Amino acid sequence: MDTKLRFGVIGGGSWGTAIVKMLVENLDQVSWYMRNESAIDHIRSEKHNPNYLSSVEFDVSKLRLSNNMNTVVDQSDVLVFAIPSAFLEPELKKLFASLKDKIIFSAIKGIVPESGLIVGEHFHDNYNIPFENIGVITGPCHAEEVALERLSYLTIACADGKKAELLADALQSHYIRTKISDDIIGTEYAAMLKNIYAIAAGIAHGLGYGDNFQSVLMSNAIREMKRFIDKVYKMKRNINNSAYLGDLLVTGYSTFSRNRMFGNMIGKGYTVKSAMMEMNMVAEGYYATKSAHLINQNRIKKTKTPIINAVYAVLYDNKNPKKVFRKLTDKMN
Amino acid sequence: MDTKLRFGVIGGGSWGTAIVKMLVENLDQVSWYMRNESAIDHIRSEKHNPNYLSSVEFDVSKLRLSNNMNTVVDQSDVLVFAIPSAFLEPELKKLFASLKDKIIFSAIKGIVPESGLIVGEHFHDNYNIPFENIGVITGPCHAEEVALERLSYLTIACADGKKAELLADALQSHYIRTKISDDIIGTEYAAMLKNIYAIAAGIAHGLGYGDNFQSVLMSNAIREMKRFIDKVYKMKRNINNSAYLGDLLVTGYSTFSRNRMFGNMIGKGYTVKSAMMEMNMVAEGYYATKSAHLINQNRIKKTKTPIINAVYAVLYDNKNPKKVFRKLTDKMN
Repeated sequence: MDTKLRFGVIGGGSWGTAIVKMLVENLDQVSWYMRNESAIDHIRSEKHNPNYLSSVEFDVSKLRLSNNMNTVVDQSDVLVFAIPSAFLEPELKKLFASLKDKIIFSAIKGIVPESGLIVGEHFHDNYNIPFENIGVITGPCHAEEVALERLSYLTIACADGKKAELLADALQSHYIRTKISDDIIGTEYAAMLKNIYAIAAGIAHGLGYGDNFQSVLMSNAIREMKRFIDKVYKMKRNINNSAYLGDLLVTGYSTFSRNRMFGNMIGKGYTVKSAMMEMNMVAEGYYATKSAHLINQNRIKKTKTPIINAVYAVLYDNKNPKKVFRKLTDKMN
Repeated sequence: MDTKLRFGVIGGGSWGTAIVKMLVENLDQVSWYMRNESAIDHIRSEKHNPNYLSSVEFDVSKLRLSNNMNTVVDQSDVLVFAIPSAFLEPELKKLFASLKDKIIFSAIKGIVPESGLIVGEHFHDNYNIPFENIGVITGPCHAEEVALERLSYLTIACADGKKAELLADALQSHYIRTKISDDIIGTEYAAMLKNIYAIAAGIAHGLGYGDNFQSVLMSNAIREMKRFIDKVYKMKRNINNSAYLGDLLVTGYSTFSRNRMFGNMIGKGYTVKSAMMEMNMVAEGYYATKSAHLINQNRIKKTKTPIINAVYAVLYDNKNPKKVFRKLTDKMN
């Protein structure tokens, strides 16, 4: 691997922390931006992130921590963005350092609310990053299992295969396997859509549907995902590969998924607002639902997306989840 | 529906009990064979099966119970077999009543050990039942959720679509949706193969692999299942339909699946024999593994089936599960 390339990670959440952990297995130096200055101080003195994956001990001599994103961008040739999609634009607004010639990987699973675009498209359209410098890191991967060094598989997608391999080499270790893909659009849409399906799984669970229905829902979800993605960007892809189906399953079947939890609360009777307040955050799938619905509405020939439509009706049209899902069951098979 | 047709169920286990429950929602009379005479007495007096799904209360006036299979066969035009595949031949040996002109549906998820065939093929090859009189009932469906009347979807496959619809009509209710298929071979192989993958999921879990790996394993399993089934019988089928992917998921993700439990014990260090003794039964997937392996070995051009091979090596070649699965992880992606 070209060791002259400098890597930087944007984001101090659980997924950002997991990515830094993976990188320092291979690299002598990783730049790491997070907003929270006291967390930086804590990492420097206590060797672990106080807020996320706190069991992970870092060799702090390898970390160049900063709460100024400009510093980290200047210090890095390859940047991995791992912040919630809703924070991306507000963060980028603070950026004066140039992104020109940077290789940008998105580890963000969602839609940028301001543009309604997936992150790759957002960087391309709004920051003039050429597509060959844009990539995606996708699971199936819970950060919590990276912390435990449980075997996990990542897919690294980039139009430029060499750049994908560059990052793959920097991430792989005895507990991380990596796979290369050139489907930057499809993998990123899959990562976004699966959060909607996880909300649907949560709503169904909250309403009292059981494991039999859950498996039917997931089986319908992967077919819906395929229809949706094939319409956005047609190419030869096997939707049952880990980056698509695997990612759907790890989220849809996880009781730790925040999207599933959000859906579950709504199924149990919380309003959308109260579920958000209770969780003290907005689940990525909330924005994804709006965007996916909009993308589909703007199509001349619509894709059949009964699950996305049902989640949209519950989250944005204030429809009764019980009634909406009863209707949805007629469309599943 | 042609109400003149008489329905009979062979088997008093949980799945047989669930099928009788579904049928009596629609029919005035169902014949029901089970070996255990005291269970029959208990159902007659207490209105529920003492051993399986005991929460289900039956209107016993609708049941024609018998511990003589010949009686039930004579009384029925449509027979649903729901006994473990290992008991099928021993039971059929007791049969003097003719199966000629009977419509036979298999609700058995496995391979007949004596012939190495799936149940439909076994009836066809050894009992001269024409394929148009043979069908399959498949999930995803845990019997326990039928007892709770939780919404479940069944696929009824038969070369003769009218016969499939006949049974589908008799099974559907406010908690059962049915779907027709003409893929009798593929759905039955899927129902058999999924038990092998459930054992694999159990072994992986027992060895300490986490949710990330489990989702990668399931994503590889559905691709392997597709390769396997396409080789057995090539036809246009969407492997992501509920009868294939849904059935895989409900079993592979269920902690109640006996196959998964069996694998889990082996992953945790039990020998195959002691796991069987501890469970007091043989998991269907145990026989399925041997048959699937044999089918593949007899092929001139083998299908790539790393998961089946790994389970076979552990169950039949006495290989160390930890080592076998470490090698398997290299073949997953």
